[in-house]
Amino acid sequence: MSIGAITCKAAVAWGPGEPLIIEEVLVDPPKAMEIRIKVVCTSLCRSDVTQWESKGQPAIFPRIFGHEASAIVESIGEGVSEFEVGDHVLTLFTGECKICKHCVSEKSNMCQALGLERKGVMHSDQMTRFSKKGKPVYHYCAVSSFSEYTVVHSGCAVKISKTAPMDRVCLLSCGVAAGLGAVWKVADIFKGSKVVIFGLGTVGLSVALGAKLREASQIIGVDTNPQKFEKGKAFGVTDFINPEDCSEPIFQVIKQMTDGGADFSFECVGETEVVSTALKSCSDGWGVTVTLGVPKTNPEISAHYGLLLSGRTLRGSLYGGWKPKSDLPSLVDKLLRKEITVDDLVTHDIPFDDINEAFRLMKEGKCLRCVIHMAK
Amino acid sequence: MSIGAITCKAAVAWGPGEPLIIEEVLVDPPKAMEIRIKVVCTSLCRSDVTQWESKGQPAIFPRIFGHEASAIVESIGEGVSEFEVGDHVLTLFTGECKICKHCVSEKSNMCQALGLERKGVMHSDQMTRFSKKGKPVYHYCAVSSFSEYTVVHSGCAVKISKTAPMDRVCLLSCGVAAGLGAVWKVADIFKGSKVVIFGLGTVGLSVALGAKLREASQIIGVDTNPQKFEKGKAFGVTDFINPEDCSEPIFQVIKQMTDGGADFSFECVGETEVVSTALKSCSDGWGVTVTLGVPKTNPEISAHYGLLLSGRTLRGSLYGGWKPKSDLPSLVDKLLRKEITVDDLVTHDIPFDDINEAFRLMKEGKCLRCVIHMAK
Repeated sequence: MSIGAITCKAAVAWGPGEPLIIEEVLVDPPKAMEIRIKVVCTSLCRSDVTQWESKGQPAIFPRIFGHEASAIVESIGEGVSEFEVGDHVLTLFTGECKICKHCVSEKSNMCQALGLERKGVMHSDQMTRFSKKGKPVYHYCAVSSFSEYTVVHSGCAVKISKTAPMDRVCLLSCGVAAGLGAVWKVADIFKGSKVVIFGLGTVGLSVALGAKLREASQIIGVDTNPQKFEKGKAFGVTDFINPEDCSEPIFQVIKQMTDGGADFSFECVGETEVVSTALKSCSDGWGVTVTLGVPKTNPEISAHYGLLLSGRTLRGSLYGGWKPKSDLPSLVDKLLRKEITVDDLVTHDIPFDDINEAFRLMKEGKCLRCVIHMAK
Repeated sequence: MSIGAITCKAAVAWGPGEPLIIEEVLVDPPKAMEIRIKVVCTSLCRSDVTQWESKGQPAIFPRIFGHEASAIVESIGEGVSEFEVGDHVLTLFTGECKICKHCVSEKSNMCQALGLERKGVMHSDQMTRFSKKGKPVYHYCAVSSFSEYTVVHSGCAVKISKTAPMDRVCLLSCGVAAGLGAVWKVADIFKGSKVVIFGLGTVGLSVALGAKLREASQIIGVDTNPQKFEKGKAFGVTDFINPEDCSEPIFQVIKQMTDGGADFSFECVGETEVVSTALKSCSDGWGVTVTLGVPKTNPEISAHYGLLLSGRTLRGSLYGGWKPKSDLPSLVDKLLRKEITVDDLVTHDIPFDDINEAFRLMKEGKCLRCVIHMAK
């Protein structure tokens, strides 16, 4: 069977920070080990916006952003046995080949074949599957879900139950999973932990949810937006700090609140400067800081050596340390069993045609997750 | 019984980088919970020299340095039941009160009462026990072993077997213990680990020894002094890199030698710039960098966030994470059973009167440990 190219609508970004334009693009058929999928819902993540603004990253344009998505398999490339047409899937912005050294190791989720793609092309042939008038339109994270159809490697998608709500489960594709994994896998917090979270966006609130479910005794949320505070309570946040209300340095306030420092601190703002504050806010001897954010501008983390000498640990992780294909189904199961909920993280449901509104809301800090409905 | 002050010889530093002057000082009797000890042997550690130079630290003078020492208890302050006159002890530059939150926790060695002292005074009353013509002479790390007699808190000394060789066991007081602990407790490396060590001084070679005893499969030593290479072999170093011989960045060379990066890297140079290289040299996904050094100048560690995002961990520790009083006896036992040896780390035995020679050798990188014999 020969599969042809498809013409469909995609939201194309033509330059840094320029409004996306919804226009027709050509989507090639899937090559070997790839699948082409029909996007159902895709939520906007801060890192889409960060990369679109291209302030601290290389500018690759024209490009189709989007990497948190639920979709239905439309066609299948040569050699794919894992998926069938009609399967429901989540996209994975970092994939899993299951055979490389890292996929085989229990300790890593940094697949050497299908890891985070930064050049705007597909892993296998360094080419794009999108084009416009014969010229390439670049991918983002080898997902590009801001398109009615997209092509992904079969290692960059995971099959999910058809009973999962497509308009909500897409949040597990990135932000929520990253937050939960940071608490459960990377920090591996203990019952009774004192936790501080810098930034109460989707990732930070997911960290709070993970900490609450692990029975942390204190969950301190730090955010300059006081509207996040009320929201945080539903996710387990017990104490709030608005840095703008503090006359002392934040880390001093936290040390006082926690009798010497938190056991764990999480940087979910995406500012490298906050990492140092997060380290200072946790305890000598055993404090662990987990950095989750992708920085909007300055990519260099700086910290006084004394913070480490006194027994702190700084850890980072991609996607909460989860192995994307192996571990994501267990999170979807938790969602279906209502052990975790993402409903409160969706602040806006937006039709595809209004995608620029989602970008505006995210830039202005006026949303958590906007779910973009391709068919609305 | 009333205990009086003692007049004895001490090596006094009068200003940053100025030669020490051996002269008579007055040593007060021990106060409550303190002991006065007669130093037998004391080895020179790089951090004595770093602090004496005072390039990146506050300059506190006049001062008596020295913190790695074997000694004999000369007199006992009120309330001390743990020691008797004549006991052999090692000094502890960071102490253990055994009752604070950190001493009670299994996870910390950062005693809140007797931790690293930075102001040049005793923990209990913020005063000195040394004076010269009525004026205070400051302490270093509340030990100050470059004196025939010194006063330490009973929580800053540990009793050892009288069969331990005083001129060698003193090395366990700081550098060797720090190196072994970094491998065994902080990094907790596994059999077959690939390890890279930046800086083959006493601490770095102790890291190598610890890695060898834990059966690491590859131990790469990095040092600009080629004389350290031959020495390293006895401590288990399997491969050597002299950065001055490399045309590529060191981390690239290490990635090639280790098929993608070391499992563990150790910063034992005392340069914060090396921490970033150490992070880059270890593997995505599971690489752990342990920073041990006290920086000679720039105290700020800087690292690209991507190094953490890709799954690396940066850890620090003081004294190799050992609880000084609780854990040091087990290391002394290992020395007595010859499971560990420190003999090859002693490059010079020097009489007290020639202490400036030890400082010169350390500054010029021409020694590992110089053991200073007080009675020679």
